[in-house]
Amino acid sequence: MSRPDPAELYELTESGQVPSPLQQIHFASKYVDGNTIDWLREEAAERERTNIQRAQHGVRGLLLPWLDAARMWLIVILTGFGVGLAGGWLDVLVKWLGDLREGRCSYGFFYNQVACCSDVTSGEACTAWLTWSEYLNVEFVFAQSLLHSFVYVTFAVAFAGSAAVLVKSYAPYAFHTGIPEIKAILGGYVLTAFLTPWTLLIKALGLALAVASGLSLGKEGPLVHVSCCMAYLLSRFFKQFRNSEAQQRKLLAAAAAAGVSVAFGSPLGGVLFGLEELDTFANESEVMWRGFVASAVAAVSLQWVNPFGTSKLVLFQVTSVSDTWRAFELIPWLTLAVIGGILGSVLIKLNVEVALYRRNSVLNEWPVLEVVGVSAITAAISYLVVFSRVQASELVANLFQECDPTKIDYHGLCNPTAMWENVFLLVLTAALKILLTAWTFGMMIPAGIFLPTIAIGACLGRAVGMLTQGLQRTYPTAWIFLSCPPDPSVRCVSPGFYAVIGASAMLGGVTRMTISLVVILFELTGALSHVLPIMISVMVSKWVGDAFGKDGGIYAVWIAMRGYPWLPPVDFHDRGETGAHLMRPLQRLVVIEDERESLAELDGLLNDHDFHGFPVVRRQEFLGFITRDKLQLAIAPLLAEDFGAGRSRRCVFSQRSSTNPEEEVDLSGLLEEAVLQLRHEVPKELVVSMFQKLNLRQIIFTTGGKLTGMVTKSDVVTLLTCNFPHTASLSAGRRPG
Amino acid sequence: MSRPDPAELYELTESGQVPSPLQQIHFASKYVDGNTIDWLREEAAERERTNIQRAQHGVRGLLLPWLDAARMWLIVILTGFGVGLAGGWLDVLVKWLGDLREGRCSYGFFYNQVACCSDVTSGEACTAWLTWSEYLNVEFVFAQSLLHSFVYVTFAVAFAGSAAVLVKSYAPYAFHTGIPEIKAILGGYVLTAFLTPWTLLIKALGLALAVASGLSLGKEGPLVHVSCCMAYLLSRFFKQFRNSEAQQRKLLAAAAAAGVSVAFGSPLGGVLFGLEELDTFANESEVMWRGFVASAVAAVSLQWVNPFGTSKLVLFQVTSVSDTWRAFELIPWLTLAVIGGILGSVLIKLNVEVALYRRNSVLNEWPVLEVVGVSAITAAISYLVVFSRVQASELVANLFQECDPTKIDYHGLCNPTAMWENVFLLVLTAALKILLTAWTFGMMIPAGIFLPTIAIGACLGRAVGMLTQGLQRTYPTAWIFLSCPPDPSVRCVSPGFYAVIGASAMLGGVTRMTISLVVILFELTGALSHVLPIMISVMVSKWVGDAFGKDGGIYAVWIAMRGYPWLPPVDFHDRGETGAHLMRPLQRLVVIEDERESLAELDGLLNDHDFHGFPVVRRQEFLGFITRDKLQLAIAPLLAEDFGAGRSRRCVFSQRSSTNPEEEVDLSGLLEEAVLQLRHEVPKELVVSMFQKLNLRQIIFTTGGKLTGMVTKSDVVTLLTCNFPHTASLSAGRRPG
Repeated sequence: MSRPDPAELYELTESGQVPSPLQQIHFASKYVDGNTIDWLREEAAERERTNIQRAQHGVRGLLLPWLDAARMWLIVILTGFGVGLAGGWLDVLVKWLGDLREGRCSYGFFYNQVACCSDVTSGEACTAWLTWSEYLNVEFVFAQSLLHSFVYVTFAVAFAGSAAVLVKSYAPYAFHTGIPEIKAILGGYVLTAFLTPWTLLIKALGLALAVASGLSLGKEGPLVHVSCCMAYLLSRFFKQFRNSEAQQRKLLAAAAAAGVSVAFGSPLGGVLFGLEELDTFANESEVMWRGFVASAVAAVSLQWVNPFGTSKLVLFQVTSVSDTWRAFELIPWLTLAVIGGILGSVLIKLNVEVALYRRNSVLNEWPVLEVVGVSAITAAISYLVVFSRVQASELVANLFQECDPTKIDYHGLCNPTAMWENVFLLVLTAALKILLTAWTFGMMIPAGIFLPTIAIGACLGRAVGMLTQGLQRTYPTAWIFLSCPPDPSVRCVSPGFYAVIGASAMLGGVTRMTISLVVILFELTGALSHVLPIMISVMVSKWVGDAFGKDGGIYAVWIAMRGYPWLPPVDFHDRGETGAHLMRPLQRLVVIEDERESLAELDGLLNDHDFHGFPVVRRQEFLGFITRDKLQLAIAPLLAEDFGAGRSRRCVFSQRSSTNPEEEVDLSGLLEEAVLQLRHEVPKELVVSMFQKLNLRQIIFTTGGKLTGMVTKSDVVTLLTCNFPHTASLSAGRRPG
Repeated sequence: MSRPDPAELYELTESGQVPSPLQQIHFASKYVDGNTIDWLREEAAERERTNIQRAQHGVRGLLLPWLDAARMWLIVILTGFGVGLAGGWLDVLVKWLGDLREGRCSYGFFYNQVACCSDVTSGEACTAWLTWSEYLNVEFVFAQSLLHSFVYVTFAVAFAGSAAVLVKSYAPYAFHTGIPEIKAILGGYVLTAFLTPWTLLIKALGLALAVASGLSLGKEGPLVHVSCCMAYLLSRFFKQFRNSEAQQRKLLAAAAAAGVSVAFGSPLGGVLFGLEELDTFANESEVMWRGFVASAVAAVSLQWVNPFGTSKLVLFQVTSVSDTWRAFELIPWLTLAVIGGILGSVLIKLNVEVALYRRNSVLNEWPVLEVVGVSAITAAISYLVVFSRVQASELVANLFQECDPTKIDYHGLCNPTAMWENVFLLVLTAALKILLTAWTFGMMIPAGIFLPTIAIGACLGRAVGMLTQGLQRTYPTAWIFLSCPPDPSVRCVSPGFYAVIGASAMLGGVTRMTISLVVILFELTGALSHVLPIMISVMVSKWVGDAFGKDGGIYAVWIAMRGYPWLPPVDFHDRGETGAHLMRPLQRLVVIEDERESLAELDGLLNDHDFHGFPVVRRQEFLGFITRDKLQLAIAPLLAEDFGAGRSRRCVFSQRSSTNPEEEVDLSGLLEEAVLQLRHEVPKELVVSMFQKLNLRQIIFTTGGKLTGMVTKSDVVTLLTCNFPHTASLSAGRRPG
């Protein structure tokens, strides 16, 4: 957190607008990591700034606000552009690293398999790409196989290990997905270390290595983090953002949308992700606009880089899905939705257990070794279980693909005689992936949860689809299948689309997202005509998931475990309690009495208590609220200037016509302008919903003007997370033992 | 507004839970049309109800809440189903009525053209369908043409006239789109007349007639109204909804989503419409779920009715759009977006002028005659200008269609030699439609604005697309077109997609919606791969529209004109003002002084002032807030029981250990539980945003416990609509002169 330079603060004073000493205090007060920003104060500062600008004479008064807006849009557009490029090049890098595990291009080390074979006309075999055994001239089949598996595992371990070393040594906050932290930051948490340029670099590089290593992780969440780091980095160039935490957060919200847009090739999904999951745009439509623009720019840039050479945004195009679906298909789809909801819950619970075990065991000391071990195991398993040998994204694309005689049949998925083997293999793959993902998500490397979840769901969905298809082909005349076309050569059941349903169900269970998930899924697959089944499966799996674990999805669980002060946007319902049950009553509050405390006493108060602010009263009557940092800034110079009798001057907070400067100090201007007061008879759920909607830090309870108690944001966070047993179990402050 | 039956109120008291007299007052207080509901109180009542239910013994305590939920979901699902059916049958009815204007089926009067010719194999001419001249054996070409135009205009006038008569005589609230009223109702406005079964019937029937008459209007908004009427009707069967205005509104929000879902065949668009335009789901995720379910059920039912015989939800399928687009196309698209923004603004302004003229001229007395006149003019113009002779939806479908040699060329749109004529005709059609729509939207018939707007935009877009295509074909080697494929037979520019862009731009300009519009548009067209250009055009046209008229779209304009107390969700920024500038100061407030007023004096106060509530003070110190209806209900029996000295008993509002019942009445329990207090130094924009986010009716300003002023919702509404000159110009209270 950089301190604002005083010279900057006075930048606007040329024309005689000297900020009053109180304004100076206002501007100079700052936050440190771990604090929660005061949205009301930030907005007041913003407002102050705008008004000073508008008050400038002539062109300057018109130009300054315009320049502000121009700078903001510049950052939004540059971030969108940057993350589009980053996402594109990440794909290229990952493809090359991934292919390196299987072989190399004969005429150039830096070509991936597709680029290497780009000159070969389709149908011909590509001779330029050499597997490692071809390159090293190993001829015995057994030796070849041994070499391949050795190279495969070695590269995997090398990639994952170096990612872990990078993260551990240079940027610890580059681990994990980043979305929990972003949610907390957007809610007001201050965590500057999370957005440094180092984190940006390490996260991007580490992500490429981690994905290429074949670990069970995705790039989606980390890309959102990368995007936010970019926006933060760009924002540091302009003092309008350096000085305003609120402005920074509005930029970050737009950047997050751009990140999702690039991760899934889903510009609209990005905006909706911001709307639903980050819960930021609801407050200001202006912020949604920035997300909209950043998202669109990012998608255009990605399309321009064109990493897949298809100039399409749709990643996993679902092809040749028939436009209609039959009523009986609702049975397998609903089954999938229920399975997805249950397995999603299971995955979350497993992941929590692993995270707790990691924290409290010897693994905590050896994060790099853990990554190396898990990547070796993952690589070995992946090599053995044929479906997971390719990159997860490739696997998903193949599972979403319908059987088509003109295309290559991926691992015999379309071979009706091999149905049972394939179903078994798919279920096995899904089961292994659940275990590996539960372990991997939370290790000391950048890791997203979306892609593995999609892969698990797609495996299960395809399996169910193949079973349904098998059933229909075996009993084509059963009454339930009568809606199918009578001609057996016409496909009735499309297993590829079942894989999409499986993926939606699994995602619904793990993330508990709704609309944004549906939009992302059909921007991802292009299956617009099947939006209804996707909606239904997401809906049902969320319900089932919520019924099995009231945890609010994997991100909410991680936020709670890491102890961030974040208010989940849940509907809280009390059982008749009022504000009086939630508040800290007057007797347990540290208050400042008007005209009673001396400067020295206030200084002592500040040293004794670390609350972020104190109510000011005059014989129980509530006068106002003063924040810790403002008080500190105001009394520090007063204490410094006179060590003698001045220290015992009384502090006055009520507005009076005159004060005696010998004996009294007027601090009434320091009281917060916006302090909400309620009667303590107010229903508890209303108090909670005010905190959720207004981003408050505290509410004061008064009755007939008399202070009766206070509720702070952390009280409400505690209330809302109390039913999750592992709250703050991973927070920085808490150590094992 | 039905009064709650006392028997119902006590339904839950069997097990000894007798409501206290104050609770009775709480339950019995009611709203009349024109009021705004008190969300906080409604939620408190809801909470009360839930707690009483939970407190029941045994199975009853478990079953009652479950039954509540089951009833709610039943209504949601039935509404979805109902509106799906209604939408489907409406389409069938409109098709038949519309075809009747051109001819009839030889073997049955009740077949439409498609059904009549369903036996004919494609390629053959359909002989069963007879135009009116064939049916009446008119042989002279001139007489045929005269007959056709006569029948065409006559039917149009007959349909429109009967719709107007129905609306005028039976359900005046069935006129117009209904969306402004729904927005106001969802915001808390009470307008029961708007949701009666009569309105439902007349709106549905009138809508079919109005659409079939060929007037420049659409069915989208009115379908939302129909859907809300259905939900309201169903909700009347259960007392949990009869007694709770808040519960009713949550159902209406879900119903509105279902309406949009059916109107556009866009289930996801429905949910997002609720989210963005109705601004209701932001408050409670539970409400969004109902919208989600209602929307999905409605879409499934519509697909089941299958009015178009295609079993597709996508109405205006955009076919054979190439997956890629070229950078140079951004120029015409941005041009279209700017035109859309400007014309959208112009359309709104024209519509306002017409509405004002209608209200203040002799037309106000003759609404049916106006409808007859306009429909005759519309029919005549439509008959002459070839493109508008078909139903607007058919026109749009044709304009969205790409040229394809295997399909019929609609009016020579694909004939390169006729380019200039077609461009001229398209622009002419658009211009005429703007004028007609501006007049039609607001007449005494059900009328939506979406479809005409889409049609206008599609005409302009197609025109620009054809010009761009012409330019490219004329100068294929110009540098700007170098990205086109060199083979001239391959299409580079797709005018059909330009029509989609035009439609998005125009819709953006008229409605100022964003995300929901994009989703609706691509659910409507299936043009998923082109989501980016659609996003950009909606974005730009909204910006341009906002720059030309700060009105917030056509619905916000109508809400303001009709004077509904609705808070637009705009970002309000003050220029340094505080709450003190917005509040009504103490001197101008009518307050109740504790222990001073007698019962008779309070009664006088209630008769003298029609404020919805009064602050209670004790020597300036703020004690609480009491609403008019609670006070009325509490003192009415007290006044009735003793006419003598009892009337002069003093009313006590502060909580004390004992009161003297001879001289005093304790009314302290009547004070509202949830009253927000702020200091008047709070920024004005913060006050506005609290009203927007918390659905408040008033905020009290106190300083050190002393009342300094009050702000009510209507003050904030006035503040936010003050820059629109025609506020409340159409409200029921105001008459011309």
